[in-house]
Amino acid sequence: MLNKDTQLCISLSGRPSNIGTRFHNYLYQKLGIDFIYKAFSTTDIDAAIKGVRALGIRGCSVSMPFKESCIPFIDHLTDSAKAIDSVNTIVNDNGVLTAYNTDFLAIRQLITDHLHDSSQTVLVQGAGGMAKAVVAAFYDAGFTHLSVMARNAQSGKALADKYHYRYQSPDDTTLADIIVNVTPIGMTGGAESDTLAFAESMINAAETVFDVVAFPTLTPLVKKGQALGKKVLSGDQVIALQALEQFALYTGVRPSDALMQEASLFSRQ
Amino acid sequence: MLNKDTQLCISLSGRPSNIGTRFHNYLYQKLGIDFIYKAFSTTDIDAAIKGVRALGIRGCSVSMPFKESCIPFIDHLTDSAKAIDSVNTIVNDNGVLTAYNTDFLAIRQLITDHLHDSSQTVLVQGAGGMAKAVVAAFYDAGFTHLSVMARNAQSGKALADKYHYRYQSPDDTTLADIIVNVTPIGMTGGAESDTLAFAESMINAAETVFDVVAFPTLTPLVKKGQALGKKVLSGDQVIALQALEQFALYTGVRPSDALMQEASLFSRQ
Repeated sequence: MLNKDTQLCISLSGRPSNIGTRFHNYLYQKLGIDFIYKAFSTTDIDAAIKGVRALGIRGCSVSMPFKESCIPFIDHLTDSAKAIDSVNTIVNDNGVLTAYNTDFLAIRQLITDHLHDSSQTVLVQGAGGMAKAVVAAFYDAGFTHLSVMARNAQSGKALADKYHYRYQSPDDTTLADIIVNVTPIGMTGGAESDTLAFAESMINAAETVFDVVAFPTLTPLVKKGQALGKKVLSGDQVIALQALEQFALYTGVRPSDALMQEASLFSRQ
Repeated sequence: MLNKDTQLCISLSGRPSNIGTRFHNYLYQKLGIDFIYKAFSTTDIDAAIKGVRALGIRGCSVSMPFKESCIPFIDHLTDSAKAIDSVNTIVNDNGVLTAYNTDFLAIRQLITDHLHDSSQTVLVQGAGGMAKAVVAAFYDAGFTHLSVMARNAQSGKALADKYHYRYQSPDDTTLADIIVNVTPIGMTGGAESDTLAFAESMINAAETVFDVVAFPTLTPLVKKGQALGKKVLSGDQVIALQALEQFALYTGVRPSDALMQEASLFSRQ
C-alpha cells in the first residue's frame, strides 16, 4: 500500500509506452522497495522538470523529444550526459537535479566487457541520438579507426568530424572489424524490418556484429551474425544495462542479472 | 499493476500525513479505478503547481500552508474557493487547473441537510482558515444572526466584519441556538485536548452543537452535546463529506456512504 514516504519515479517522453512503468514497478515489488514508477508526457518541459524538483520526484527518465530540451533545467550534468549533450536519466537529491545518459554508460560498459582491442576498425551506421552515444563511447574507449556511415551525409559528417573520425558514404564498401547498426533498419514495425542492416560481404568480413536495435531481440543482422558465428552484441543488452544503471541511480539497489532479465521479459509482455 | 494510463493524484502540505494517501488508494482499489494517490510536500509552491499542470497530474489536494499561496497559479477559481480565498482541491483537465474548497462545500452541505432555520442565532468560535469556511457557509445559507468569538480579537472582528456579523469577546456569555467550535480546543495532542470548547451554560442553551475538530471523533464537546441530547454535528462528518467531494471531482465516481466510512476508518489506522 502506498504511503506518504513512498518515492515516485517517472518518465517523460513524447509517446509514453508501458515498458518502463512495468519494468521498474516489477523490480520494486520483487525487491520490496517502497517506490512507484509511472510514465508521463508533457507539452511544457520547463515546468515539468521544475515540477520534478519542486515535488521531490526522486527520478525522471527522459526520452524523445526531451533529451536535449531538458538540459537547461538541470543543476549538474555528469560526464555521460555531457559526452553527447543528451540526458536520459535525472536524479533528484533534495531538490538538486543531476543528469546522466545511461545509454552512453551502457554502450561504454559493453565495449569494456567485450571489445578489448581498440586498434580494431569500427563502422557505425547511423547519425541520430543513439549513434552519437555509440560513437562517443568508442572514442572514450580509445578506438582511433572509426567510420560513420549515414544516408544523411551532413549529419554523418558532423558526427564523424566531432571526433576526427571518417565519414563513409553508404555506397562505400570499405570493411571493418566491428560493425554497428544504429539505424531503424531491422526494427519491428519499420519500413525495413526485414532488411539486413549491412551488406553480407561486410558482415562476413567483420569479427563483431553489434545491433543497437532492440525490437525484435533477433533482428535480421543479429540472426545473420549468430549464424556466421560472429561475436554478437545486441540492443537487448544495451537496454538491460542502461535500465540497470538507471534503476541503481534511483534506488541505490543493483538487481541480479536473473532478476533484470525477468523484469525485462515482464516489461515487454 | 501501474501502467502509463494510470492517473496520479497528489496532495501538497507542509507536513504530509498518511491519511489522504491511505483513504484515496483504498477507494481506488475497492472500486477498481486506475488511479494512484500520494502525499508530497514542497518548498516551491509555484513550481509544484506548474509541475502538476505540466505533468498532467489529475488532482492535487492542498493543505496548510499552501491553501492561499497556490491561488496565483490556478486557471479558474470556483465559487467555493472564492468565498474564502482558500483552495484545498485542484482538478487538472488537460492542463487547465480549476480550484475548489471542499471544506466550504462540506460545511455548506451539512447546513443544508441539518440546519433548516436560518433565523436561528449562531455562535462560531475561531478565526482561522476553517472558521472562515464555516462563517462563509452560514452566510451563504442565509443566516443573519451570527457572532464570531475569538481570542485574537483582531482576527475575530475582521472575520465578523466581512459579513456584517457581530464580534463576541470570549468573556461575553451571550447564548446562541447553534454553537460551532472551530478552534483546536478538544483536539488530540493539543494543550487543551480535555477542555470543553464552550461553557456548559452555552451548551445547555444551544439546540445544535457543531464541533469541527475531527480528532478525536468524540471530542469533549461532542460527548457533552450527545449526553445532553442535542443535535450534534462533528468534524468527522465534515472530513467525510469534503473527502467525498474531492474524490468525486478527481475521479467522477461517488462512493457509497458505507464505502466512504470503510475508507475513512482504514485511513486512520
